[in-house]
Amino acid sequence: MTDYRIFNNDDAMRFADKHSELFGDHSKLSAEEFGDGNLNLVFRVSNDKGTSLIVKQALPYARCVGESWPLSTDRARIEAEVLRVHARFCPEHTVEIRHFDAELSAILMEDLKQYTILRTALIKGKQYEHVATQIGHYLAHTLFYTSDFVLTGPAKKAAVAQFINPDLCQITEDLFFTDPYCNHERNNIHDLIISTARELWQDEALQAEVAALKADFLSKPQALLHGDLHSGSIFVNAENCKVIDAEFGFYGPIGFDVGSLLANFCLNYLGCAGLLADTEAVTEHQTYVRQQCLTLWQVFAEQFSQLMSQDSQDPMLRNSLYQKQFLQQVFADAIGYAGCELIRRTVGLAHVADLDKVSSEQQRASIEKQAVELGRRFITQRQSLNSIEQVLDLLPL
Amino acid sequence: MTDYRIFNNDDAMRFADKHSELFGDHSKLSAEEFGDGNLNLVFRVSNDKGTSLIVKQALPYARCVGESWPLSTDRARIEAEVLRVHARFCPEHTVEIRHFDAELSAILMEDLKQYTILRTALIKGKQYEHVATQIGHYLAHTLFYTSDFVLTGPAKKAAVAQFINPDLCQITEDLFFTDPYCNHERNNIHDLIISTARELWQDEALQAEVAALKADFLSKPQALLHGDLHSGSIFVNAENCKVIDAEFGFYGPIGFDVGSLLANFCLNYLGCAGLLADTEAVTEHQTYVRQQCLTLWQVFAEQFSQLMSQDSQDPMLRNSLYQKQFLQQVFADAIGYAGCELIRRTVGLAHVADLDKVSSEQQRASIEKQAVELGRRFITQRQSLNSIEQVLDLLPL
Repeated sequence: MTDYRIFNNDDAMRFADKHSELFGDHSKLSAEEFGDGNLNLVFRVSNDKGTSLIVKQALPYARCVGESWPLSTDRARIEAEVLRVHARFCPEHTVEIRHFDAELSAILMEDLKQYTILRTALIKGKQYEHVATQIGHYLAHTLFYTSDFVLTGPAKKAAVAQFINPDLCQITEDLFFTDPYCNHERNNIHDLIISTARELWQDEALQAEVAALKADFLSKPQALLHGDLHSGSIFVNAENCKVIDAEFGFYGPIGFDVGSLLANFCLNYLGCAGLLADTEAVTEHQTYVRQQCLTLWQVFAEQFSQLMSQDSQDPMLRNSLYQKQFLQQVFADAIGYAGCELIRRTVGLAHVADLDKVSSEQQRASIEKQAVELGRRFITQRQSLNSIEQVLDLLPL
Repeated sequence: MTDYRIFNNDDAMRFADKHSELFGDHSKLSAEEFGDGNLNLVFRVSNDKGTSLIVKQALPYARCVGESWPLSTDRARIEAEVLRVHARFCPEHTVEIRHFDAELSAILMEDLKQYTILRTALIKGKQYEHVATQIGHYLAHTLFYTSDFVLTGPAKKAAVAQFINPDLCQITEDLFFTDPYCNHERNNIHDLIISTARELWQDEALQAEVAALKADFLSKPQALLHGDLHSGSIFVNAENCKVIDAEFGFYGPIGFDVGSLLANFCLNYLGCAGLLADTEAVTEHQTYVRQQCLTLWQVFAEQFSQLMSQDSQDPMLRNSLYQKQFLQQVFADAIGYAGCELIRRTVGLAHVADLDKVSSEQQRASIEKQAVELGRRFITQRQSLNSIEQVLDLLPL
């Protein structure tokens, strides 16, 4: 770490120039920094012909809080290595990593400037039909090919060790599974739903189910997860989707990635009632989002099943009855984690714009209560829900 | 590894002398090597006053097979470190490690020459009443204090990485969970039960359950297991028990350790009908073994419950309803793993003397068939068996 320094625009330009054949000495480069959120510096470096790349550097603390919350810059390595592994199995929907420098904790990657962030698109009511199909494919392939179905025992253990990610996992362990279920100072609860939050703090039956989901998050290294697959981690354009931001990646339960995205669709489903212009637009958009949830699970399940049946390497795990039971448990896990995401995005520290942008406080409160109630049902009913259709029947009309 | 050399008696004496205050320059030392089994050299080094210590050195291959089966000597580090961790939480029932040398892959440890191996005692029909109580205590304390109930996320992840044990885990993955369910050349099947073995190879419903248990063995790092807790890994005398041989240790499902020992009691229960002199002796010994199984689970469950309720650190895992469900799942896992142990000790590579010593081939075949059938019931009924009493009701009278 002796050579680590926080990049300015010039550093970012030099880094991009050095590690890419796109620029060259005589090109006229420019750089602009734009925040990606909380933990990193992100620069767009462009030449005078309009070609550009992204330089992302991990800061040694959480940017939103400041230097008081130290955070290992090893997360840049995790991000680069997860995305490279995922690109091996699904290059079409994974952002391309061009270079990673461990000492600088800096990544040079493809610029997706022709794309929009999925959350932004959804909030505007845009409807890209291919999202669920493509991300279902991404999930099936990245999760299957990093799992026990394919890797030998020794290879799997080495991969688990490579992706041990204590700092970032602890953020999830706390913000996702603990804070929303107690009166924690980090929580961010709008005044009008404080009684809804209090109910969560007192619901021991719900908390027992969340504890089981947390225990699996801690101790169920089934596959190399993205670890933070919400609609802000997906870029979309008219034809394609690309997944970015894998710094929360680690070996965990497969249902976590699937459930995270399902929940973000559900949050948008609920929020759009307060975001879009008229009832007709809301109905149309909700029909689209519902269909995306359905397709996401169907495509994931179908492709994951096919991969299990055709490409499993472990002789015992080739058993088709076991594979069916395995997928059923992934489904229950996914619905449970979706429930946790719905709750923590409503009463926890980090909210989503899909709800926070609802301008009427009354309407926002009513939607937030729906989100918490939906989350509760997902968590408590996850083992008895038998199909994605049954899950979607729980969405308010 | 440059300094690694295979010990002779002189090396073992020098090693013991150098790392212990028990001997001293002028003591007259002697050493004898005695096989512990398959993977290591074991020396007893004694001085002329009768004080002795054990020197155990890992060989870079599996001794029973020869140099053709290479095996990492890192297992000596695993063994020493697992036993030291376990001794922190249960010193009274864990063999004391005096010194470990990484380059030589050699361990200096307490000599338990006043003790007998539990399997040897059981085969002779000896009945030590304290075994189950003490090992139940050992299991509850070593497994609880290395689990997510106690360790923070980062501490747990570091511990998982410290105890990644690919070579030895692969032996279990193959011999325990795969070979017995197919016609593998490593299997060791007595002629008279070949049809029983064939039934295992064709039973897809059973194999699906074994696949689920194998998947958990691969991906459920709940606690730091001993990893090979059969009755040959326990020393016993009139007052005490001590656990040895932890080279298979790793982070795995808690039920695996509990189930391994339960199965070894059951194997002795079945075998003693062909080992002891008369019907009365058999009945008496079987009553004792049945009681040991009962006590083992009861003591483990009671103490583990108490530890969960009094000493859990993770706020979500303090939930008593969750703790109850957790223990119930450990029970089902334990019965499942016990079933796998019963089967692999009968038709797999490594048998147990409790069955192999039955001199009548007909009687041994009949007992082996009972062991396989009991294993099958354990595995397939594990989720519906509600108490240890119900499990013991499956034992033939």
